[in-house]
Amino acid sequence: MNEFELIAALCASLPSNSGVIAGAGDDCAVLDSGQPARALLFKTDAVVEGVHFLPSAQPESIGHKALARPLSDIAAMAGRPLAALVTIALPKDFDAEFIKKIYDGMNLLARRHGVAIVGGETTSNPERLLISVSLLGEVARDKCVLRSGARDGDALFVTGELGGSLAGKHLQFEPRLEEGRWLAEHFSIHAMIDLSDGLAGDLRHLMERGNMGAELLVRAIPISRAARRAASADVASGLRPDPKAPAKTPLLAALTDGEDYELLFAVAARDAVPLSDAWRRQFPKLRLSCIGKITATPGLTLRDASGVRALEAHGYVHFS
Amino acid sequence: MNEFELIAALCASLPSNSGVIAGAGDDCAVLDSGQPARALLFKTDAVVEGVHFLPSAQPESIGHKALARPLSDIAAMAGRPLAALVTIALPKDFDAEFIKKIYDGMNLLARRHGVAIVGGETTSNPERLLISVSLLGEVARDKCVLRSGARDGDALFVTGELGGSLAGKHLQFEPRLEEGRWLAEHFSIHAMIDLSDGLAGDLRHLMERGNMGAELLVRAIPISRAARRAASADVASGLRPDPKAPAKTPLLAALTDGEDYELLFAVAARDAVPLSDAWRRQFPKLRLSCIGKITATPGLTLRDASGVRALEAHGYVHFS
Repeated sequence: MNEFELIAALCASLPSNSGVIAGAGDDCAVLDSGQPARALLFKTDAVVEGVHFLPSAQPESIGHKALARPLSDIAAMAGRPLAALVTIALPKDFDAEFIKKIYDGMNLLARRHGVAIVGGETTSNPERLLISVSLLGEVARDKCVLRSGARDGDALFVTGELGGSLAGKHLQFEPRLEEGRWLAEHFSIHAMIDLSDGLAGDLRHLMERGNMGAELLVRAIPISRAARRAASADVASGLRPDPKAPAKTPLLAALTDGEDYELLFAVAARDAVPLSDAWRRQFPKLRLSCIGKITATPGLTLRDASGVRALEAHGYVHFS
Repeated sequence: MNEFELIAALCASLPSNSGVIAGAGDDCAVLDSGQPARALLFKTDAVVEGVHFLPSAQPESIGHKALARPLSDIAAMAGRPLAALVTIALPKDFDAEFIKKIYDGMNLLARRHGVAIVGGETTSNPERLLISVSLLGEVARDKCVLRSGARDGDALFVTGELGGSLAGKHLQFEPRLEEGRWLAEHFSIHAMIDLSDGLAGDLRHLMERGNMGAELLVRAIPISRAARRAASADVASGLRPDPKAPAKTPLLAALTDGEDYELLFAVAARDAVPLSDAWRRQFPKLRLSCIGKITATPGLTLRDASGVRALEAHGYVHFS
């Protein structure tokens, strides 16, 4: 049983109540705030030493990543983060100065996005450091973007460049909060997700939630310099589950490497050009790429000069 | 540097914003809900294999405890829980059936208290199971009870019986949610806390937040049967940090054993008798004890037949 199968089994019978607008299965849970115009967003995310960062990582970067990951999920709902709780499980030989620097990295990012850190706890986890961050956010109800909602013919866009994140970006990325809110405010975004499992894996989540398929244009996929330079750098870093796997091509890295933390979204085809133009004016430094379209036919296909073929490769599946 | 010293250092410079009513340092954070009459409560709490439960514990009990702990903090603010997120960090050799039973225990407790479980995540923690639960709750603003607010001469009350929790109660306790809300609704509760670090330790938190002292009446402290029967059972269980420590007397167990998950609160002395009477009618099966009083003089003292003496013993200090 892999991660997704276990989650599916666990999610089948979770208790709910009248305050739940969207429960498990999206980037964040969406909850009734008691106000008609506003909903609450609720999210938790953990980083574990040796799984999400190496012991040699800078402590400020570890703290940054621990908070940036759930912030990226708030971004994918077009939300605004409000408050965070930090659970830090400390190994036996923890160094208080190292922990303080983790908080320095977290606090800096929190201040940049107006997030209050309102508590949490320390506990012990003898063998390795683990940090779990819970986030509360808010969103205008009519601007909240779910994973579901993609329609046949929608244009698919992705921010930034993909692949090779483990060479460094995974510890330094900036969550696309302003971008997510701007998108929902100015365009009718049908569906959105942040890329944590790799483009192919997360696009499949979007497709499944909307009962749709998708076709990607190979030449339009924004491949990062890191993915081109060393598509196999993740193997060398020791973070890849199977070091014996063959090195990836840059395209495969962009499709399946995890931890891009970019936004993937679907809009009506007629909005594609106006959106691209407005984006370039609003965010001139951040690339936005139209990478393909949503199709009524299920399945994920790749189109290149030689034609169309099915893409079987999944994104990164944790502990499968 | 022990747990409390590290937390104090980390809390000194946390980012805040205008939505924070009470940040780190109370049972829950209290946040502006955007509604004048209502505040949000935000809490996270983790249980770790070998620290908060033994590998031999029943999975349903592990799940129960993981959710019951933060629920107990919501109870201590007189709040109502709304929604939970569950982070479950799985060891390498995890058994999917065991994990499902953990959720069975959690789901049962959640349903009993109307809590929705709206997501979370699975991640890996190779050596041991760790479950972190984040809770969102709500409270009427004028009924929210903080740790601060105890006044000179206030009567101190505690629910239930204390000590010896590691013999079994720590896996089965029922969070005092209904009781906490009833107390705040019918009486002016000056300060309240749930007992997780032991009566003496948590009473000190209450005293420090209110800049007060306290005097406990030895004969009034409700010592549990488990504490009387085997005050040293926690040593045998392997969960006690220092197995070479001498066995505790039942009184010392009631004062310093952790994980009672009862409510400790302070009310004006004139409310003590009406509150006790009303409690007996409302909750005839749950003992309520008036165990002493708040004093203007700092420090914690014990009064018995031989007089008054200072109590130096702290509650359980994690990994000190």
